[in-house]
Amino acid sequence: MGFLSKKSVHATNSIRELDGIAEKMREGGRKITKLNIGDPAAYFPTPKYIIDAYVEALREGRTSYSTSHGIKELTSAVSARYKRMYNLDSSNEDIMVTQGVSEALMFLNSALIDNGDMAITFKPYYPEYLSHLKLNGGDMLFENYEESRGWEIDTDRLERSLAKMRSDGKIKKVKYMILANPNNPTGTVLGRKVLGEIADLASEYGIFLISDEIYDEIVYNGSRFTSIAGLAEGVPHIIIHGASKCYDSTGFRIGFAIVPGNDGVSMDIKKSMRDMANLRLSSNTPAQYALTEGLNNVAEHKKAVSHMASMVEAQANFMTKMANSTGFMNAVEPKGAFYILPKLNMERLDVKDDKEFVQKLLVEEQVQLARGSGFGAENHVRMVVLANKDILGEAVDRIERFCKRHSR
Amino acid sequence: MGFLSKKSVHATNSIRELDGIAEKMREGGRKITKLNIGDPAAYFPTPKYIIDAYVEALREGRTSYSTSHGIKELTSAVSARYKRMYNLDSSNEDIMVTQGVSEALMFLNSALIDNGDMAITFKPYYPEYLSHLKLNGGDMLFENYEESRGWEIDTDRLERSLAKMRSDGKIKKVKYMILANPNNPTGTVLGRKVLGEIADLASEYGIFLISDEIYDEIVYNGSRFTSIAGLAEGVPHIIIHGASKCYDSTGFRIGFAIVPGNDGVSMDIKKSMRDMANLRLSSNTPAQYALTEGLNNVAEHKKAVSHMASMVEAQANFMTKMANSTGFMNAVEPKGAFYILPKLNMERLDVKDDKEFVQKLLVEEQVQLARGSGFGAENHVRMVVLANKDILGEAVDRIERFCKRHSR
Repeated sequence: MGFLSKKSVHATNSIRELDGIAEKMREGGRKITKLNIGDPAAYFPTPKYIIDAYVEALREGRTSYSTSHGIKELTSAVSARYKRMYNLDSSNEDIMVTQGVSEALMFLNSALIDNGDMAITFKPYYPEYLSHLKLNGGDMLFENYEESRGWEIDTDRLERSLAKMRSDGKIKKVKYMILANPNNPTGTVLGRKVLGEIADLASEYGIFLISDEIYDEIVYNGSRFTSIAGLAEGVPHIIIHGASKCYDSTGFRIGFAIVPGNDGVSMDIKKSMRDMANLRLSSNTPAQYALTEGLNNVAEHKKAVSHMASMVEAQANFMTKMANSTGFMNAVEPKGAFYILPKLNMERLDVKDDKEFVQKLLVEEQVQLARGSGFGAENHVRMVVLANKDILGEAVDRIERFCKRHSR
Repeated sequence: MGFLSKKSVHATNSIRELDGIAEKMREGGRKITKLNIGDPAAYFPTPKYIIDAYVEALREGRTSYSTSHGIKELTSAVSARYKRMYNLDSSNEDIMVTQGVSEALMFLNSALIDNGDMAITFKPYYPEYLSHLKLNGGDMLFENYEESRGWEIDTDRLERSLAKMRSDGKIKKVKYMILANPNNPTGTVLGRKVLGEIADLASEYGIFLISDEIYDEIVYNGSRFTSIAGLAEGVPHIIIHGASKCYDSTGFRIGFAIVPGNDGVSMDIKKSMRDMANLRLSSNTPAQYALTEGLNNVAEHKKAVSHMASMVEAQANFMTKMANSTGFMNAVEPKGAFYILPKLNMERLDVKDDKEFVQKLLVEEQVQLARGSGFGAENHVRMVVLANKDILGEAVDRIERFCKRHSR
């Protein structure tokens, strides 16, 4: 690979790494049960009121470039969403539209990271956080969700880590701390107390916060979502979100980001993200009008998103129980997002690791999962719980059959 | 700016740098004549047959993520386009769908450029070429379109430059040569002979070729377009293109790229671009179906694109004549794309440079142009010729009034 850049090896996405094999199997006539990608629009049709707005924008000829940082109608709708849901005051200047959360991550890492800079995240983490950081020459320092505590964060431990980073001089290199809340892949929903402590620590240690809240309305099992919006006043931060999950529109590629502060760091970030947006000219224009309606039509949205959340809750709990009943794995019941992350019982399985597990499972049983090690969770597997119980039940039967065949 | 990365200063786009001022003027009730952005969909409605296909995809519920490198329907349509138009054989594996040409440029620079690497382009150049390269730590070596020869490339001079790069050791650092054909902003359409010589030189010096052919069907004034496709067999290269210009769909954000070779370099590029695509999951899905129809419905497309090309031809020639008649500038008649690039007669103008010219022109006469220095053409201005003759004529009147007021 001498011709490619050294950094290009970091462009990896373990979630999709078996897609090539799966595609060949499908071409060979096999039916694959895909539980590797969190794509709600593949299971819940995008709500009709959003599609109608999209079609209207197309019929009205709204197909030219938009302003690079997004149409005003959408940035205003985003501002109204955060006022309505989290009592956050923001202006159009605080908001920008991106081509999905992926692009926001790309912009942020390009804006913040030079070779040798660092960032902090919590393991298990969403893999793109690491890839975009490393593509820009940065290194990740890992904190943890504690599986033994139901995937919660121990803020005392975080505080000790930060103190150590300060004493050994690393903290100066840390450009940001990123966390997903609700978390993909653990399903953790951070409580108000923990989140407040994290915001306080960020403030004390002068760390910019990136809060990925794209699953903010997909919470269940009695949990309640808290946005960093209400807790981090005075702490420079950005919230990233988008159409894909709560608005059930993965294929639109529309995300949005909000930087509510007016401190120097927040102002720098706003300017730099607009510069990056100018470089790629525009997001998809008619899809921005569609999402504007998605955000503004609160009644229709509530109906759609609460239906999805309650289905996901039932399916997540069903899948957790089923997976645990096999005796070959153990999963914590999630509180948000679309995933369960069972730990494989490696003492009972004759596979080398989670990577071999998911590869062989796909080939032998046509069930595609994502390997936990891609999220920093060795010997775990991530299962998406968007399919209905029939499909999920059938998948677990195959997984169990596979485990029995590979048990020791 | 201590908080931002050092590289972030390279995220600049001079074409849009006056948008902020223009927006404030509009909010203050002024009407701006925008001749700075090459956005055909703002002047020619996106053809109805493409919109119909887009609406159909939406109504059929095609709103989930697509395969990262693009739906098969579209990659097949791209392959068929290149067979039909340039007799190029390619497979689906050679093609990938990107979020516009901008994203293809981003992927290529991320895939190829580490700190200290170099690339070659021809001045005046499309500004994004430089920005994406520099964001990745690379440096540009400039060759030239010669204004005195009607913006043609002198391949003898190119050969001497390459020989010098070889003798002083720089050539080892050169990762690619990028050229736009037809060129934005000069309107140059490279002849078969010149293009063949460039391909031969790339082969001789072992340089990967990036050919941006997004304006391939917008050629006029008796010129004939030649794709690198037919000339660079055996020379590793990529062709980048997209929906925006010839398919009049700037707001879709769909591009495509084709790497026809099976040599080691081409295979590396194909793999790395797919890896990069996996990281951002998908392009807009329904827009991919729309562009598929855009490519496949050859009869409707021909009608639309030849109408656009003939309007652009008439407007480009009108604008060239009008601009030259002012006596304050001199433009070469373009042969392709949407632009003219007059050279300002600085001896007759009391403005400091092209930057001051476009700023003052906007504020005083509400006409927005792009400054030539953003394209490496100091003391030139780029004018987009998509608007009709009434608008263009009125704009030139204002420009002339401005020049007279600022003459010495």
